Amino acid sequence: MSDRVMLKIGGSVITDKSGDCVINPGQLASIATAVAGCRMTGLVIVHGAGSCGHPEAKRYRLDRGGATAGHAEGIAVTHHAVAGLNAAVVAALRDQGVEAVGIHPLHVAFADGGRLVAFEYRHLEQMLLLGLVPVIHGDVVMDCTRGACIVSGDQLVRYLAPLLAMSRVGIATDVPGVLDGGAVVPVITPASVRRLQIGISSHTDVTGGMKGKINELLDLARAGVGSEIFHVSRISDFLSGRDCGGTKVSAKG
Amino acid sequence: MSDRVMLKIGGSVITDKSGDCVINPGQLASIATAVAGCRMTGLVIVHGAGSCGHPEAKRYRLDRGGATAGHAEGIAVTHHAVAGLNAAVVAALRDQGVEAVGIHPLHVAFADGGRLVAFEYRHLEQMLLLGLVPVIHGDVVMDCTRGACIVSGDQLVRYLAPLLAMSRVGIATDVPGVLDGGAVVPVITPASVRRLQIGISSHTDVTGGMKGKINELLDLARAGVGSEIFHVSRISDFLSGRDCGGTKVSAKG
Repeated sequence: MSDRVMLKIGGSVITDKSGDCVINPGQLASIATAVAGCRMTGLVIVHGAGSCGHPEAKRYRLDRGGATAGHAEGIAVTHHAVAGLNAAVVAALRDQGVEAVGIHPLHVAFADGGRLVAFEYRHLEQMLLLGLVPVIHGDVVMDCTRGACIVSGDQLVRYLAPLLAMSRVGIATDVPGVLDGGAVVPVITPASVRRLQIGISSHTDVTGGMKGKINELLDLARAGVGSEIFHVSRISDFLSGRDCGGTKVSAKG
Repeated sequence: MSDRVMLKIGGSVITDKSGDCVINPGQLASIATAVAGCRMTGLVIVHGAGSCGHPEAKRYRLDRGGATAGHAEGIAVTHHAVAGLNAAVVAALRDQGVEAVGIHPLHVAFADGGRLVAFEYRHLEQMLLLGLVPVIHGDVVMDCTRGACIVSGDQLVRYLAPLLAMSRVGIATDVPGVLDGGAVVPVITPASVRRLQIGISSHTDVTGGMKGKINELLDLARAGVGSEIFHVSRISDFLSGRDCGGTKVSAKG
């Protein structure tokens, strides 16, 4: 069994979603310190776009598909916003001695109908072998039927975790787990999810909020990779293999 | 026949090779003005790294292969330098209204023994359909035998031009063409190249200078795509299909 770990950091955690691409440097520094402290090898980080990119994607209607020649500007502008956030995440990690390297999905991936159909990953394998930490992010991606689409960090986790043979996947968010009536749900399975009342996020999010996240993670669990949703303050616990007090998503209860 | 055109801009043209990553903004603006004036569709731009990246690649010995875990820092530092030049090229083009989008080979390509073996290009096809201009650059690339290697702009031209069905390839340099005894050689073929005395560039160049360039272009010609080497001041002529006064590289004389 591989000891590879994928850590997804929610966009809401590292940006202020009430503003337009307002990055939270204090939060980034805390996360970088936690990651550096665990001295992980075989680590891949994925982060969401938060308030960087979502407003642009909505403005240019990239979330609705159908990017045409007139949308060319929107593709570049949206990518520029999320790539800037990625650069800030990479810089924060490198400041703490983590050998982070940003990877932009627009540069490598290809989608069809809003879903990833290709993402070269042999170079990511090689990066892991050399001790690098790839940092991948929600991005605009070219799409053979829609022209371009938005691929969320959660979809990236769903697509890449099995390809990269991840043994554990952690989703750091601004809540302690999936909440049902105020309490953290300890486990979600395909059978139990229908009984939950999952709230829709009030923030601008073109990629489906908590509901979309859980659907991606249930699909990932069916593909054989379990995951856990927990509060961002528990990243050290997750990376060290300790209990995070969050919600586990698995194929069976 | 496609009307797609690939324009390679030499690293020496857009940086000062006597310094350490000194970008020439005046030259970038002139090139961007020439490209914008031609209002091309189906255009892909490739640029070299010049003084951005070559010194780093030498310092970390990425040019000699054999990147090990200890070279992780060199990969990130070298990429950072060339990605910065790419951002400057893209910004100059966008300032003139060209819908340029930077593409980093480190994010998408994979190599074996210093030669590209994979580079997803369906997203580049989709970008061309939507009127975007991909701007690709010489970069450090992960390599399954060497760990990492340097892939020159010329190797990128060789690899991508046939895949993207380019009908014309132009190489803009700081000389008017390939010089032999002071005069521009009008045509180079596999048969004629042995008679030439091609000087080795005096600048720091880990990718083979003019000799390496000609070998890549001869290989490209054998694959069915002819090219022309000309002075950077002739970019408008090349894009418009006029004579550039340079050196044509073709499979037959």
